[in-house]
Amino acid sequence: MEMSLFTILDVLGTIAFAISGALSAMNRRLDLFGIFIIAFVTAIGGGTVRDILIGSTPVMWMENIVYIYLIGVVTILAIIFRNKLNYLKKSLFLFDTIGLGVFTITGVETGIQNGLDPIVSVALGAMTGTFGGVIRDILCNEIPVIFRKEIYATACLIGALAYVILYDMGVDADVIYLVTSLTVISIRLVVVKYHISLPSFYPASPKSSKLR
Amino acid sequence: MEMSLFTILDVLGTIAFAISGALSAMNRRLDLFGIFIIAFVTAIGGGTVRDILIGSTPVMWMENIVYIYLIGVVTILAIIFRNKLNYLKKSLFLFDTIGLGVFTITGVETGIQNGLDPIVSVALGAMTGTFGGVIRDILCNEIPVIFRKEIYATACLIGALAYVILYDMGVDADVIYLVTSLTVISIRLVVVKYHISLPSFYPASPKSSKLR
Amino acid sequence: MEMSLFTILDVLGTIAFAISGALSAMNRRLDLFGIFIIAFVTAIGGGTVRDILIGSTPVMWMENIVYIYLIGVVTILAIIFRNKLNYLKKSLFLFDTIGLGVFTITGVETGIQNGLDPIVSVALGAMTGTFGGVIRDILCNEIPVIFRKEIYATACLIGALAYVILYDMGVDADVIYLVTSLTVISIRLVVVKYHISLPSFYPASPKSSKLR
Repeated sequence: MEMSLFTILDVLGTIAFAISGALSAMNRRLDLFGIFIIAFVTAIGGGTVRDILIGSTPVMWMENIVYIYLIGVVTILAIIFRNKLNYLKKSLFLFDTIGLGVFTITGVETGIQNGLDPIVSVALGAMTGTFGGVIRDILCNEIPVIFRKEIYATACLIGALAYVILYDMGVDADVIYLVTSLTVISIRLVVVKYHISLPSFYPASPKSSKLR
Repeated sequence: MEMSLFTILDVLGTIAFAISGALSAMNRRLDLFGIFIIAFVTAIGGGTVRDILIGSTPVMWMENIVYIYLIGVVTILAIIFRNKLNYLKKSLFLFDTIGLGVFTITGVETGIQNGLDPIVSVALGAMTGTFGGVIRDILCNEIPVIFRKEIYATACLIGALAYVILYDMGVDADVIYLVTSLTVISIRLVVVKYHISLPSFYPASPKSSKLR
Repeated sequence: MEMSLFTILDVLGTIAFAISGALSAMNRRLDLFGIFIIAFVTAIGGGTVRDILIGSTPVMWMENIVYIYLIGVVTILAIIFRNKLNYLKKSLFLFDTIGLGVFTITGVETGIQNGLDPIVSVALGAMTGTFGGVIRDILCNEIPVIFRKEIYATACLIGALAYVILYDMGVDADVIYLVTSLTVISIRLVVVKYHISLPSFYPASPKSSKLR
């Protein structure tokens, strides 16, 4: 794989999500292979669903053996150094945020490269960025991160929108990659630090409290 | 998109499932983007899985930008008019039933058009009709609607079977679309009104009460 | 379908997973169609995800009507003879183990036949073998079997590794199929009988007990 900035981001996102998956799994007291499975699924989940929706099969981790080795090595390191990642909750948040940021960008890029409408590419980017975390949370029996209080999907939608705008303006590709992934990451850091949430909406009727 | 009856049904099903997803999300007190995400996933879930299984990629909402806009507008309206949808449980049931009925038909149609065996087309139709509701329920942490007491999947299997029978008899396409989607919707309305359920089967042994 | 040993294994795995799905559904007191749905999804889940990842669409149960009929008949028999399957927990374990063993092999075989890297084929085999059981457990609201205490995914990874090693050595295909599927099944029988588990790893910090 040539070492373009795009490739570096892709590798970074894979590493970040693999670590976040391993941390979630260790927190759930899963066994050695449970940790590997969650790390793997979190790391390749977004890219896999992106490739399936586009029709680009076999999916990326099947075409390039580097992904599996990378995830394996990163997971082993996460297990070995688990005690140094003292603030577990903060570490998981940090790595999930990095993965979200860079995978949103690869998703939007893939949409654009395949000639899809910019709005569709934004949706694809949001899906690519968030899917790994959602799968990790479902398997670890957590409420998916996109549904917790602070802004999550909004962050990657804003970053993805920034992508298509900068792309349309003819800005250099490497600049776009950096600016947009940092946008997503920054928004997440800020909203979690200051506990910023979006409004909720629900009908006022008392009958609406439970569906069953 | 040409305005055939099939297209009208497809749009109707998308609108119905988007509203049902938005209602579920609001009932769960999700934030603004949580509502959009659930509405979107519920509305495109069935068609997406249908297209993936057939091999028709990029999937339908990526090929036609109308879907995303339609879902966005419908969701905003559902949020604005949430208090007018007073009987939340009944509204959700109604829109889910409409979505189930019409998406079952589009699924069977897709199977037939792709030269699949009629029985396989019936299975594909049932999957297309039910998948959106199942995904919505899993993400909203509800027991999937297909497993609740009143007849659900049976309704769309009957409608799908009616479709292949009428198709085989050479009945006009528009008539088939109307008759079969109304069949599914009517069955659901009746079984919920009169609390009709299928029998359950379980072994008598006391050891079988929990798997763990 | 020609009656090669591979085909026999494929049919056996489909039957085994259909029974395990039906047993799970009956244990959950699902209605008649809930039982069929779970049986069907468990039986075709692994093969479907394998075909989607490879890009082999329409997926296998859509191309060959035999699968649907087979699953239907097997499920009816499982319902009729449910009381004879007295030790429910042991029956479910046995059929899940058989399905895991043979579907792991079909997954690895598919990877090799499609020219994928051996390690990628091993991952594909593990995914094909485990996916049906995971889907069954998620829909039946159980913790997915791959995360319960005794060794699960490790068993099929070892069998899959044995496959690629024997394949590389030029051993006859039928011998490989038998040896490797029996390897997976034997490992599962032994680890459950003697309660063998893999180690868990988790940080020592008291803050790590819950993510929220």
